[in-house]
This record gives sequence, C-alpha cells and structure tokens, in this order.
Amino acid sequence: MSGYFSEDASVDAVNGRMEPNIDPRLRSVMSCLVKHLHAFIKEARLTQEEWEIAINFLTETGQICSEQRQEFILLSDTLGVSMLVDAINNRRQPGATENTVLGPFHVHGAPRREMGDCITLDGKGESCLFEGLVIDLDGNPIEGACIDVWSDNADGFYDVQQPLIQPRWNNRGVFVTGPDGHYRFIGIKPVSYPIPDDGPVGKMLEQLGRHPYRPAHMHYIVTAAGYQKLVTHTFVGDDDYLGSDAVFGVKATLMAPYHRVSDGSTQWRSPFDFVLNPA
Amino acid sequence: MSGYFSEDASVDAVNGRMEPNIDPRLRSVMSCLVKHLHAFIKEARLTQEEWEIAINFLTETGQICSEQRQEFILLSDTLGVSMLVDAINNRRQPGATENTVLGPFHVHGAPRREMGDCITLDGKGESCLFEGLVIDLDGNPIEGACIDVWSDNADGFYDVQQPLIQPRWNNRGVFVTGPDGHYRFIGIKPVSYPIPDDGPVGKMLEQLGRHPYRPAHMHYIVTAAGYQKLVTHTFVGDDDYLGSDAVFGVKATLMAPYHRVSDGSTQWRSPFDFVLNPA
Ligand SMILES: [Fe+2]
Ligand SMILES: [Fe+2]
Repeated sequence: MSGYFSEDASVDAVNGRMEPNIDPRLRSVMSCLVKHLHAFIKEARLTQEEWEIAINFLTETGQICSEQRQEFILLSDTLGVSMLVDAINNRRQPGATENTVLGPFHVHGAPRREMGDCITLDGKGESCLFEGLVIDLDGNPIEGACIDVWSDNADGFYDVQQPLIQPRWNNRGVFVTGPDGHYRFIGIKPVSYPIPDDGPVGKMLEQLGRHPYRPAHMHYIVTAAGYQKLVTHTFVGDDDYLGSDAVFGVKATLMAPYHRVSDGSTQWRSPFDFVLNPA
Repeated sequence: MSGYFSEDASVDAVNGRMEPNIDPRLRSVMSCLVKHLHAFIKEARLTQEEWEIAINFLTETGQICSEQRQEFILLSDTLGVSMLVDAINNRRQPGATENTVLGPFHVHGAPRREMGDCITLDGKGESCLFEGLVIDLDGNPIEGACIDVWSDNADGFYDVQQPLIQPRWNNRGVFVTGPDGHYRFIGIKPVSYPIPDDGPVGKMLEQLGRHPYRPAHMHYIVTAAGYQKLVTHTFVGDDDYLGSDAVFGVKATLMAPYHRVSDGSTQWRSPFDFVLNPA
C-alpha cells in the first residue's frame, strides 16, 4: 500500500504500487518512464482537452498499423527516438564508422552477389559504382566481412513497396570481402523519398511545419566476426534534404562523394570505406 | 535547418526542426514532450530490444481500441496520468470538495429524478440512502445545483457494460437541489470491480505485480452556475482496495461514512456534503 495520489506525490504514488519482487529491469525502466511522463505533464500543464487529443492521436496511430505499415516506428523515427536508442546502444571509438537508423525496408535473405555485380534489376536510374574497403581501426583489411546493401529505385520506392512493379530483390544484394577487404558493386545513385505521410504522423509533421522527406542514401549492414555490427547509410552529399532528414538519420561522417565517371562504364562512382569497431 | 543529430544534442536536433510560425502552444507542448521523452530514454539507457517491446505494446494498445473499449485511457489511468491531468486542471481552495477521475462509464442524459427517488432498477444490492448538502465555501446552501450520479450494480457492472442484462439507466439519475441545497436519493452501497484486464494494460499490471481492482465508489458530477464543475466519487471507507486503487482515484477527503439503518427503510445511509469552489 502506498500513499494516496496527489499532484506533488504523483510519481511515488504510481511507482510505489509496483510489487517488490517483479523483474528489476522492468521496475527500473517503468519508474523512470513514470517520472519523466509526469514531469512532462506538470511542466507543460497539459489541459484535459490536450490530453484527449493525445489519447486520440495514439489510438489512431495504433489503428493504422498493419502487416504493411508500422506507424509507431514512424512516430519514433520522426521524434528522434529511433536515432537516440541507436546512438545509446552503439557508442564507438573515434574513427569507427557510425551507425544510423535501420529503417523499415530491410529484407533478410537478399541474394549473394559476386564483387562487381550489378544489383539494379529494373534498368532505371543513374548507374553508380560503389567501392571501398572494410577495415579495422588500424586500417587492416577485414576478410570475410558481409555487406548487405539496399536502396530505393530511381522513382523513390523500395522493391517491397512496389511488389507488382519492381523485380524482386531490385537494388539489393549481399557481398562478402576477400583477403584484400575490398568491396565493389554497381547500383544507382539513390534518390530522396518521403516517408508515408498519409496517416497521423504525417498530420503531426504538417502541424509542426516539417516535410516528410529523407535525403538520398544507400543502406548498409556490415558484419564480420569479432566486430560490432554496423547498420548505416551513406548519403549523397548534394541532396536538398540533408539538413532536414525527416527521421534525423544524417551524420556528417556518412557523407559519400559521388564522382562523375567518364570512361562510359557507369555514370557515377562513390567510394566509401567502412571502419569496424571491435566487438 | 538545424544541426545533425547526436546523442548530446538530440533534443535540439528534433525541436529545432519545427517551423517558427506554427501554433505556439503546440510548439511548447511538443518541445516539452521531446525533452522529457529523450531524457527518459537516456536515463533508462533503453536497449533496442526494449524499444521493440515498447513499439509492440503501443501498437497492441491501439489495435484493441474500439467503440466499446479505450485501452489508451486505461493506460493513462493506470499510470496516474489521468489523475495528474485532473489535479493540474482543478486546483481548488482548501475546504472545496476535490475532483477525481471521470472514468469511462458516465452517460449523458440520465433521467431527472425527484429528491428521495430510488435509482436502482434491478432490485439487486444493499439499499442505501445518499444525502447531504451542496454548499459554497462559506457553508451557504446552493439552489439549483445539478447532481448527476452513477454507480455499478451489486455484481460490479455498470448498466452500459450489460445492456442485455440490466435495465437502462440502472443506478443512474440526475437531481436538482431546491433552496435548502439538500439532496437525497436511494441507490445501493456500491461494490469494488476490476477494470478490463484482458488486454495489454492488464498484462502490464500483472508484470508490475498490480491488481486491476477499483475500491467501491459512487460517481458524482455536481454543477451549479457560478461554480467550478465538480467531477468526483465518494468511497466506501472499509473497502479492501482503498490503498491500491488501480487508477489512483482515492483521496482521503472523499471517504464517505456508511451507517447501518435500523428503521427498515434502507440498509445503509451515507451522508456527504459537496462544497463547490467559485468559478
Ligand atoms: Fe531508406
Ligand atoms: Fe467507477
């Protein structure tokens, strides 16, 4: 039994109700949540009407979720929560390539390709050679590193968003490095695209005066035995939305150069080295 | 354009993205929310797995909502949020009767009754005379005060929860005071009941070692021209759950006496005076 509820003692009233013998981590996270949730309500002096708006917003956000759509992840992304959780759990030594958000469009089981292969199957877009090294913090090449890459197509959609239009595994592939740690594949120079903005999160962005666009990026997951898993993007450095990514995924160290190619093999070349942090 | 996202500058990165010309109250509430939300995540050092659990919990909570069920209000109630919002928005002078949660079972348009009428239509439960005064802070009776009352039946259900079993408007009624400020009606001594606990919120309570019960209470909305609206309960003083109300609605000043009656008219008598705060 705890004290009765009062405005001043609201946090203790709620947290004092938890039984002593529950999971200690759950107790710690929930206590922390209640403390900050009540602090928000007190500082904002939330009105009953605003509370109702919040209840309705959360309800609509849950109701629009389906197998094809996760609006709460979109909410987490657009409030910087996904990036913050990623940052807290992936602190690295200086020099190691930084993480960014996974995003909703990764698919497990993309086909294994040979170095130099092309992953663009729909023939659309400006072709680009992506290449570089997978190395450790001392610059030594890492053999057997697995590079899982994916991007949108030239129209700004991932293959899974257009299953009837795009070939399966369009702009996706898995590559494994040899002894020289080198990777090399042909894709397209990715383009910027909006996150789904026809639901509650889109309405929220509009009321906050924010657009729903993400700057153009190539997704990577790089894994190697003995190293931290790297989940990241490289960004196209001249994109209009670099300073206003709807999900806050941009980091200065993840900007990749895009050079025009004159030998006719591809239209662009984008070099980038991945530096893995020890596990 | 704001700075790129980083763990240290996460709040500024998100809040700096709002346009200058949006609604100022929205800007203020959202800035405050992002600040406290990020502070929670940082202090708890939320893991990616815990973030996923949270996303799934919120999604399930939204998906179980329907015309008949509002699981996000239940979540708000069980985390003390509803009581806190109520407290912040209904600060009163000492001596005025305190507010508590409205709850989900109020229905507009209950039948107007005459003083002394019985509101129990199903013949179940231990009959009780509820009576007292509606007065101002100086003890003067308030004429024309409207008293909207409702309670569960002897089985612990409100009429709206059992539309096929209970008569319509069972244990509900509206009374209006005369020049003496007196009210008087017959209902039942209410019984404790569980909030709906077969959804995500019920699972949460179980993991926190909390039961879903509310101590027995009679609901009141008392309104009168020139006075703050009073939304409150009176509680049965010997209830087992008074110290552990699942929604934190109990206040010491809302405990009502229940006296045994020996003249055979009713089984109990519960006197309680409502003191209204000036608007
Ligand atoms: Fe993406
Ligand atoms: Fe109730």
